[in-house]
Amino acid sequence: MELFAVEGLPEVRPGDDLAALIGERVDLRPDDVVCVASTVVSKAEGRQADLADFPAGERAREIAAQIADLAGEEKDPRFAQAVLEESEELVLESPFLLAVTHFGHTTVNAGIDRSNVPDADLLLLPEDPTASAERIRAGLADALGVATDGSGGNDASDGGPGDDAPAVVVTDTSGRPFRQGQRAVALGWAGIPAARDWRGEHDRDGREMGVTVQAVVDELAGAANLVTGEGDGGTPVAVVRDFAFGDHAGHDDLYRDPDQDLVRQALREWTYESETT
Amino acid sequence: MELFAVEGLPEVRPGDDLAALIGERVDLRPDDVVCVASTVVSKAEGRQADLADFPAGERAREIAAQIADLAGEEKDPRFAQAVLEESEELVLESPFLLAVTHFGHTTVNAGIDRSNVPDADLLLLPEDPTASAERIRAGLADALGVATDGSGGNDASDGGPGDDAPAVVVTDTSGRPFRQGQRAVALGWAGIPAARDWRGEHDRDGREMGVTVQAVVDELAGAANLVTGEGDGGTPVAVVRDFAFGDHAGHDDLYRDPDQDLVRQALREWTYESETT
Repeated sequence: MELFAVEGLPEVRPGDDLAALIGERVDLRPDDVVCVASTVVSKAEGRQADLADFPAGERAREIAAQIADLAGEEKDPRFAQAVLEESEELVLESPFLLAVTHFGHTTVNAGIDRSNVPDADLLLLPEDPTASAERIRAGLADALGVATDGSGGNDASDGGPGDDAPAVVVTDTSGRPFRQGQRAVALGWAGIPAARDWRGEHDRDGREMGVTVQAVVDELAGAANLVTGEGDGGTPVAVVRDFAFGDHAGHDDLYRDPDQDLVRQALREWTYESETT
Repeated sequence: MELFAVEGLPEVRPGDDLAALIGERVDLRPDDVVCVASTVVSKAEGRQADLADFPAGERAREIAAQIADLAGEEKDPRFAQAVLEESEELVLESPFLLAVTHFGHTTVNAGIDRSNVPDADLLLLPEDPTASAERIRAGLADALGVATDGSGGNDASDGGPGDDAPAVVVTDTSGRPFRQGQRAVALGWAGIPAARDWRGEHDRDGREMGVTVQAVVDELAGAANLVTGEGDGGTPVAVVRDFAFGDHAGHDDLYRDPDQDLVRQALREWTYESETT
């Protein structure tokens, strides 16, 4: 398996055709997986925003006041309003905002980015990253003159990236409980199932596998992040070549069902208390 | 960057010299990163165990009874005892055991494996995976006839894998909150810092980076897991070639400080209640 960054992409602007920008710069193969940072997807989709777009309602003002009180951090109530509008649920309001986006991803500040945004205060995550991945994949298929399977490719029933167009994974970096630091995860995907489903498969000694569902799109996103980097020398797109999904069942439920997510339940019922109060 | 699995490793037995087994099968280069599944590290280190080795104490019996009661699952009290002995803390006792190992990793059942273990009931995680990584790395250096930096290589101050011996990452697969499925993570590492520290670096527009600490060893572990697979055709070792850590500061604190881990705090204070009770 080989990974390389796609070099020479220009600064992406609203309305840009990402698939064309990528397709012009790399000779893609049908079984490639193209990992695209959500920042450039958001920029192409016009998800730049300003704080003035989010006049703070009462709950946003309360949250900002609570964070200032408990965590001693000044939070612009308009930023809290933006997070509220981008979220289905806040699982934690202080000392920071941990939010579940409308598409199911749990992350700090609903993934709203305050760096990397020229000419705007904020960059929101793509509204529907799997739809974004499907659009980019269709664009790549057009550029290559090949067909997708028509379903947008995000269909686990075919068991892997077997169509004629490269798979696409829209990525973001995110922190996580228990472990320091951030790593890339997949927000949306097309042309590849989110996970390998090992259930019912057996190890060398005939015992059922300990690993049951392997979140391959997250591992692809993380692998891509090793070659893209960020910042001055950063490139937002990487290609994974010769990845074999293999002969496994596919699985597309990457985001936990809220009612089966114990950590989410625990956080809902928990209130942060500052050590100084 | 290129990744490939090391083919042809035999079933690993207690006392086997993993570095020699790997070194005989692949022409390693000094800047390779060798990712080794903790299962084979544990097997070489004799971490096989039987349930009979863990006579259940009172707390283990209580935990097993509680899990049976709340989750309707029969849990062998000796297994609960094994988890207790392998843990520094249980952050959740039911409906499943979420434990922090003595070396700081938070995972279900303290990572004790009930598959993949011929001639034993259980396979415990390595006692100190970073020490394991250092030993394997020293063995690889011997096999290659090169030197490590003497510190075992797990020294972030040198900023990356710049010594003469390949870096080593000991990996495991683990579930995680908020997202379905498992992905590989690093348990221990040598010859490479755990993370790239971007703090103080700036993006293209001169703004401070949104990503501050990138857990590269976790991303390396996940990338390796894409080529190793598990089960019948599985191979426990993969090599990452031409990964460039780059000119960033290093950071070795992969496991969160318990007092700064809000999710751990929330889980400590939370009690699972079955919907049927």
